[in-house]
Parts: sequence; structure tokens; C-alpha cells
Amino acid sequence: MGDNIKQINIWQDKAASAAARRDASLAKVEPKLEGIPDVLPLSSQELPKSVLTPRELQITEKYSVTELLKTNCLTELLWDQAIARAKQLDALPEPKGAFFGLPISTKEHHGMVGENVVTSASYAAWVDKEHGSNLLYDILYSEGCVFFARTTQPQTIMHLETSSNVYGRTVNPYNRDLTPGGSSGGESALVGMRGSLLGVGGDIGGSVRCPSAHVGIYGFKPTAKRISVFGQRANMAGKETILSTPGPMTVERDALELFMKVVVAAEPWRIDPSITAKAWTPYRFTKPLKIAVQWWDGIVQLHPPMRRALEEAVAACKKAGFEVVDWNCESLGHDEAWDIISGLYWPDGGEEVMNLMNETGEPILPLTKFIIEEQPSVKKMTVQELWEICARRDAYRARYAKAWTDTAANGEREVDVILCPPSFGAAAPHEQSRYWGYTSQWNLLDYPAVVFPVTTVDPAKDVKDPNYVPKNEQDRFVYEMYSPEKYVNAPVSLQIVGRRQYDEKVLAALVEIERAMGRP
Amino acid sequence: MGDNIKQINIWQDKAASAAARRDASLAKVEPKLEGIPDVLPLSSQELPKSVLTPRELQITEKYSVTELLKTNCLTELLWDQAIARAKQLDALPEPKGAFFGLPISTKEHHGMVGENVVTSASYAAWVDKEHGSNLLYDILYSEGCVFFARTTQPQTIMHLETSSNVYGRTVNPYNRDLTPGGSSGGESALVGMRGSLLGVGGDIGGSVRCPSAHVGIYGFKPTAKRISVFGQRANMAGKETILSTPGPMTVERDALELFMKVVVAAEPWRIDPSITAKAWTPYRFTKPLKIAVQWWDGIVQLHPPMRRALEEAVAACKKAGFEVVDWNCESLGHDEAWDIISGLYWPDGGEEVMNLMNETGEPILPLTKFIIEEQPSVKKMTVQELWEICARRDAYRARYAKAWTDTAANGEREVDVILCPPSFGAAAPHEQSRYWGYTSQWNLLDYPAVVFPVTTVDPAKDVKDPNYVPKNEQDRFVYEMYSPEKYVNAPVSLQIVGRRQYDEKVLAALVEIERAMGRP
Repeated sequence: MGDNIKQINIWQDKAASAAARRDASLAKVEPKLEGIPDVLPLSSQELPKSVLTPRELQITEKYSVTELLKTNCLTELLWDQAIARAKQLDALPEPKGAFFGLPISTKEHHGMVGENVVTSASYAAWVDKEHGSNLLYDILYSEGCVFFARTTQPQTIMHLETSSNVYGRTVNPYNRDLTPGGSSGGESALVGMRGSLLGVGGDIGGSVRCPSAHVGIYGFKPTAKRISVFGQRANMAGKETILSTPGPMTVERDALELFMKVVVAAEPWRIDPSITAKAWTPYRFTKPLKIAVQWWDGIVQLHPPMRRALEEAVAACKKAGFEVVDWNCESLGHDEAWDIISGLYWPDGGEEVMNLMNETGEPILPLTKFIIEEQPSVKKMTVQELWEICARRDAYRARYAKAWTDTAANGEREVDVILCPPSFGAAAPHEQSRYWGYTSQWNLLDYPAVVFPVTTVDPAKDVKDPNYVPKNEQDRFVYEMYSPEKYVNAPVSLQIVGRRQYDEKVLAALVEIERAMGRP
Repeated sequence: MGDNIKQINIWQDKAASAAARRDASLAKVEPKLEGIPDVLPLSSQELPKSVLTPRELQITEKYSVTELLKTNCLTELLWDQAIARAKQLDALPEPKGAFFGLPISTKEHHGMVGENVVTSASYAAWVDKEHGSNLLYDILYSEGCVFFARTTQPQTIMHLETSSNVYGRTVNPYNRDLTPGGSSGGESALVGMRGSLLGVGGDIGGSVRCPSAHVGIYGFKPTAKRISVFGQRANMAGKETILSTPGPMTVERDALELFMKVVVAAEPWRIDPSITAKAWTPYRFTKPLKIAVQWWDGIVQLHPPMRRALEEAVAACKKAGFEVVDWNCESLGHDEAWDIISGLYWPDGGEEVMNLMNETGEPILPLTKFIIEEQPSVKKMTVQELWEICARRDAYRARYAKAWTDTAANGEREVDVILCPPSFGAAAPHEQSRYWGYTSQWNLLDYPAVVFPVTTVDPAKDVKDPNYVPKNEQDRFVYEMYSPEKYVNAPVSLQIVGRRQYDEKVLAALVEIERAMGRP
């Protein structure tokens, strides 16, 4: 370490600069927030009531700006900008735009509209680096929204948690000992306590769905190239082996489809020609759904509360008259899918991001090491090796598509959607999110997927099976992570997955399944 | 060369094997063809009349199988298979399928339905190598077509001509001294003399459009991922930097849309999930077209007949009341586009295909050297360099999309299509097809494009300008290539280009423009 003192100062100075920017932005809040306890309670859900005025609370119950969240979910509060924008909108002769006046929070690395924008993407090296807007946010802005807060993401934006040397650790608003998920964990922490009603995350391995699931909100990962990433700050520009997509995260189910409709209606393909030129066409089921249930993925068993959530949802679907079949993954090689996608994440062996972190000497965090250094398939590839793994990816995708198409063999109806867990359980304790398979599977396949809240952990119901014998090392790790008292009140969510490009059908299935569960 | 004698024998033996297969397939024709002159005329257009019986001629005027074309366009005649297939179809209780009984010819490297299929892709190393069907041909077959002939492609399938060590040189049916274009030049030679009414080619730099244009037929390159290449034999499996697409080549305009409609209606994305899941929705113009005319590409000037073809078409469009503006390419860097795409073709510096050719010692042909060794941007790339050039590609595409969108600035209507040359002139003399810019531009952009016949070279009208001063070396090469007498009667075609994914609009514009030219 001795040789690195100068470097270490670099990243520490950078992190201090980002913290100062954040704190200065929070200091703008008026009236000042007072009454935050020195020792924070485990759950942040009641904090707003102890800090906000009755009038503020009345407002935030509808469209909250709960600034001092102590979940550490913000990189910057856009106080001045939001006030100015609200005044600008108020001055218009009449409301204009689908999101007129709606506050929207956003993941920091995407960038931001306006002047003097800096975007670090949670890299110390990029703190204070200028980076402006992107096509998606320009569209939202032109529809009248008010951007008011930017939110944290983890180092490399490739953890299913949210911790970085620049912004520290973001915690779950239901339980400070649990992760809010990641990589859009700043968004999930904020939206999860109604500090924002609608936020924008991004997903390449679960980064919208995992955090949404962990705080019990709605999160949607559309098929790639339905929404543009044009203009975002990201590593490995030009990499196309596996694609990320932005997605909405929200407290309200119907906001998902509204978001998609508005964003696609702007015809983003006229600016970013890589986007699929296809209108958003809401889907309507004319027959009872046919649902395939993925009870597990053949690798890692579910924690008891997740198993219960799935059982409850399936019971409701059956009661509603849906056709329910099993989705048997064992023969479909979800382990191979992980082997492929984890290699596709870092075709340069992680060199570019490692260099970026080493520039300032910032420590490589454990979950960064996990996703780069501890994955056997990650290596610095030649172009030929890259083609080989892309060919494997395409063959895998074709095999999975055939399995889905074959559900209609023998004259039966084709499965409409897969109902499955978005994770092995509720939000994990910090540093334990080392199994991505329940979300990354659908990134490799580029299938649209939505998560929605189902229940919360109940120690009385969700007892651990002491006799369970883990099937492999990953399964053992996950099994040993569970004990009911760690997860009290933690939200438990489920996931609905559709065939590639059947985005509208997935959101229609969400409505049907929630109705079956008694949520009109 | 001395050390290579064994290798040389390898490729020669392989080529002999392919020739024997072809000749054996041609020998099946009954009744036997007689009367082929020893010295072939320059044009093959009258040959069928001297060889075929009156009854055969009567048939071939409608759906010809002109087997012994002497354009050297066939790799194999599927005589037995076609007869058996026709009998099978005849035995059905009623016609079934959109292409019931329709003979379709196909580019060899795509593969073929049936038993014991071998596919060489014109590589000596792959002669006699088994390779079966592909998704597209399975779809056509299930619609009742009769595959009857497989056609030549050049070495590496990356020339705009059609010559290989395996099959020799394919010539233009209008003039043996000219190329039929490439790489789908076997198809164009065959369809160009009505030896087939509908064929399938493939296009990654002009390989459907260039050959179609050079023989005066219709050829369509849709946006990539509208039609599947799933199952084709090709090099560099897994490469996705620049994509090829199959496309129809036909004597009849309306067959293009029929082909697309049928192929998309089969929902190929259920088998090949990379295909865009979007119905084929015929486009109807409700206002007069707005056409942008690309008079040249800023690099290489047009030969006089191509210039005249464009002038005649534009005059017809104006007379029909279309809005006609100029498409000014000079500021859009078509030279940069070539620099990018030529690099994207060979991210391994051509190593894989060079190795494949060296396996048998087959000579590297001049146009192969041209497209691999003589392009400055071709190099063996690292993954980082690959990302860089992909990022350049994406930036270029975005810049071009913006230019198109900006045609609607100032409250004007957006340009519907670009009308442009598919080449600097008519079919080039052999070995002279060293400028791809007029077709490859639209591959880099992934814009759909169709070519259609306009006129033929007329020495009286298409005189060379002796005072023209070439603007650069490429322009000089192209200028010096022209003298009217070389090109007598050669077809001259034009190209219509649409925005990415606006395939249906391009085919609708073709109908409108041809109507304006007096072709209902």
C-alpha cells in the first residue's frame, strides 16, 4: 500500500468532491429538515413522518421528495433545477406533455439535462467529469417532467447491490441491514420509500428488476432496443455482445405501460437508429392466460418466503381459471447461460474498468472482484474467441426459443408468459448478492421481464427447512444465508417473463395476474 | 510454389469434384440439350431459342429452367430433387402454400433442403462438405416451392463479381465480357435470362443489389434481421459488427413484396429469436412522394448511362408531381462510411478466411486481395479496437439519421426515400468491380434498398466527356473504365433507399416511382 499513497489520495479526494456536491445539494432543502435521530432505526419507512411537516407529509404521500433519506440513495438533489423547472412549467399557458409536472428520479450514470452536468458513474476517476443528457431523458423532459434527484449505483455498475468508493453504501429502506439491490439501488431505495414515484434504472443482468423486487415496487426491463441508451455514460462503448436497457421503476403498476407508451411514441429511432422502429401496441388477452411456472432454476433453491410467494400467486392464477404448467429448467442449462453471459460482460477481461479504477487507486470492492475476477468465463478475448462466445450465445437463444415454441406442440396452446422468482429470496444482507441467475437469464435471452410485489417475509410462515441438503456450492451459500429473523418485513416480489420483443404482452400479463391476486 | 505442389493438388482436386457434381447434375436434363455453339455469342439472351424445343421455349417464357446457361452460373442443378418435389406436390389433394409449385433458385452457400446436401460456399476446402438447410429455405419449402438450381458465388463471397477457384467465372447474360455482379452473381446471371423467375441472394455490401442491377432485374435488400440467415454456411460465425441479409431477386416487381410478406408471416422469430418480431405491413402513400436524389456520392462520379438513367427517372418523378430535392452527400462522409465498413468486414484481418483458403493452397484471387489486403482499415483487431470501430459505426449511423430527420426541419415534409445509383455505371468488365460505395453505404447504415431496371447503355446518348477531370484516384479508375462500346445493351438500374426498418415504405416507393415512369 505504501507505494500507492499518492494514488489513494486521488480517489479519496475525488470521493470527497462528490460527497461535497451531494451535501451541498441536500443543504438547499427548505424548510430545513430537523429531527433525524443520531441512531437510525432499522427501517426507514417511518423516518419521513418524524422529519417532515404535516403539510410536507400530505404532499409526499402523493408525490414525495423525501430528501434526507439516510438510505444514502442520492448522488445529488436537483433542488435549484427542479424549482426552476417547476416555475417554467407553471408559466406555460396550459399543461403540455404526458409527464407534465411529474417529478422523476434518475440513475446517475445516465447523465442529466441542463447546464454544468457532471456524471461519475460511481468511478472516482470520473468525479466532476462533465457529461450531459441522453436521448431518453430528453424525451421525458420534452414531455414536461421535473428531474429532481439523481441516484446511486455501485462500482462498475455491475453489482446486484449498491456500494461504491464514491458514494458509500446504499441501504434498503425496509431494513438497513439488507441491500436495496443493484445496480439501480439508489432508485429502488428512493422509490421504495416513496421518495420518488417514478424513477429510471438500467438493466443488463437484473439491475432494474433486482432492486425493484427488493423494495416491493414495480420494475420493467423491456427487450433491448425498445428504449435508447444513446448518450449515457458507460464503459466499453461499442460493446454489443450483451446489451443493457433502461427501464422504469415505480410505485404504480400502470405507470410502467404509460412510461413505455410515451417513450416509444417519441419515435426514438429517428435519432438513435439502432432502436426498433415499432409502435407500442398494448396487448389484450382474449383467452385465460397460459402460465409456465419456474419453481427453481435448476441450480439454486428458493428461500422459503420466495417459495411461498410463488405458491400464493400460482394458487390465485389457478383460481382465476388460468392454465398453469411447469417450466422445467433443468434441461435448459441455466448454468450454461450464466457461463456465457458472465463472459460476455467483460470480453476484455475487465481491463478497461480495472484501468479506470486503478487510475485513482480506488479499492476494488468485493462484489467487483466477484463479477470480474471470480467468474471462470471472464477473460481477455481475441476477436475469434469473441465470435465463438457470441455464436454460443446465439445457439443458446435459439435452443430456448425452440423450447418455448415447443410448448405449442401436440396441438396445445403456446405458453404466454413464464412466472418465476426475480431472486432466490428477499433482499440479501450486504455483500451476499452473489447469485444473478434469476435475473441474468433473461438478459442473456433478451426477454422482457417485469417484477411486482407479492408479500413480505413472515417468520411464522417462512421457516427454514433444517433437513435440506444443498445440491451444489452455490446452493449451499444461498441456503445458509437464510434465517427468517434477518429478513423481517422484507418485501418479496415475483417476475413475469415473455418471449423476446413481446413487451406489451408481459405488461398485459402483469395486469391479469395481479387481478387474479385481487388487485384491480 | 514448389513447396506447395501437394497443396495445389488439394484445391484442384476439390474444384474438379465440384465441377463433376455440377456436370453430373446438368447431364440429367431431358430431353438432352443440343445445338450449343462452340464459340459463344457475346450475349446469351438468344441462346435458349437455339437450344430449347418450341414447347420448352413456350414454358420458359413463363417459368424457365434454362439449364445450360453457359453463363456458368450454376453450382448444381437439382434435377432429380425438383422432379420428385413436383410429383409430390402434384399428388396433394389441392394446392397448398403461397409458393405452391413455384421454382426457386438459390445461392449455394445458404445450403439446401433435402438429403446428402453438400455446400462449399466456393471454398475449395469445403467442397463435398455436408451442410443442410436453413430457416429461410425451410419456410419457402413449407410454402410449396420447388428448389431446382443452386448458383455460384465468388471466393470469400465478398466480391462484387462472381469468380472462384471452385466454379470459375460467371458472366453477364447480356455480355460475356461484363460481370453479372456479385456476390449473388450466379443468381443474377440465371434470373437475368429468365432461367429462374425468383431467386434468393444475400447482401452485406451490395451482393443482392449489385448483381440485380447489372442484369436489369429487381433485387431487394431488407433491413437486417427482417429475414433470417439462421443455418446458412458462412465464415466468421458469431461476428455481429456488420450483418448480411438474404433478399429476393426476381424478374417481377411485385414478387419482392410477396416474398417478404410470406417470409415474415411465418414468424421466423419463433425459431431465430434474433429476428425482429414485426408483421409485414404494406405501406400506402397518401401524398405525393418526397424524393431526395443522390446525384453522386462525393467520391466517384457516375458513368454517362447511369447519369442519364437518373435524369430520366427524376424527370418522370417530377412530371408525376413528386417533390424532388437533392441529397447532398459531400458533407456526410461516404468515404468515412467505407473506411468503417471495410474494417468491420474483417475484424480478424481476414485471418480465418485466409487460413481456409491456404488449407488447400487455392490461389487468392485479385478481388479477394482487393477487399482484404488492399483496404487500409482491415487489420487484426483487439477487442478494444473492435469496440472503437463499432462506436464509430454507431456515431456515423446517428449522424446520418439526424441528417435524414433534419430534412423535416423548418416545417417541411421529411424525405420519404433516396433515389440513387446502385453503382457508378452498368455492369463492369471483369475484375474491375473495385468500388463498393454506392451499395455498401446502405449496408453500413442498415437501410433497406431496392434496385430496379431503368434503361440500357446507348452509345449514341451515353458519350464519354473527354474533358472530365477526375477528383481522386478512385474517380480516375472509374472514369477510365468507361467507353460506350464496352457496354452496349448492358442494363442500367437505379436504387431506392429508405430509413432503417422502413422496408415496406421502400417497396411502396418503388411502385410509385415505376408508375411515374409508365410501368403500372
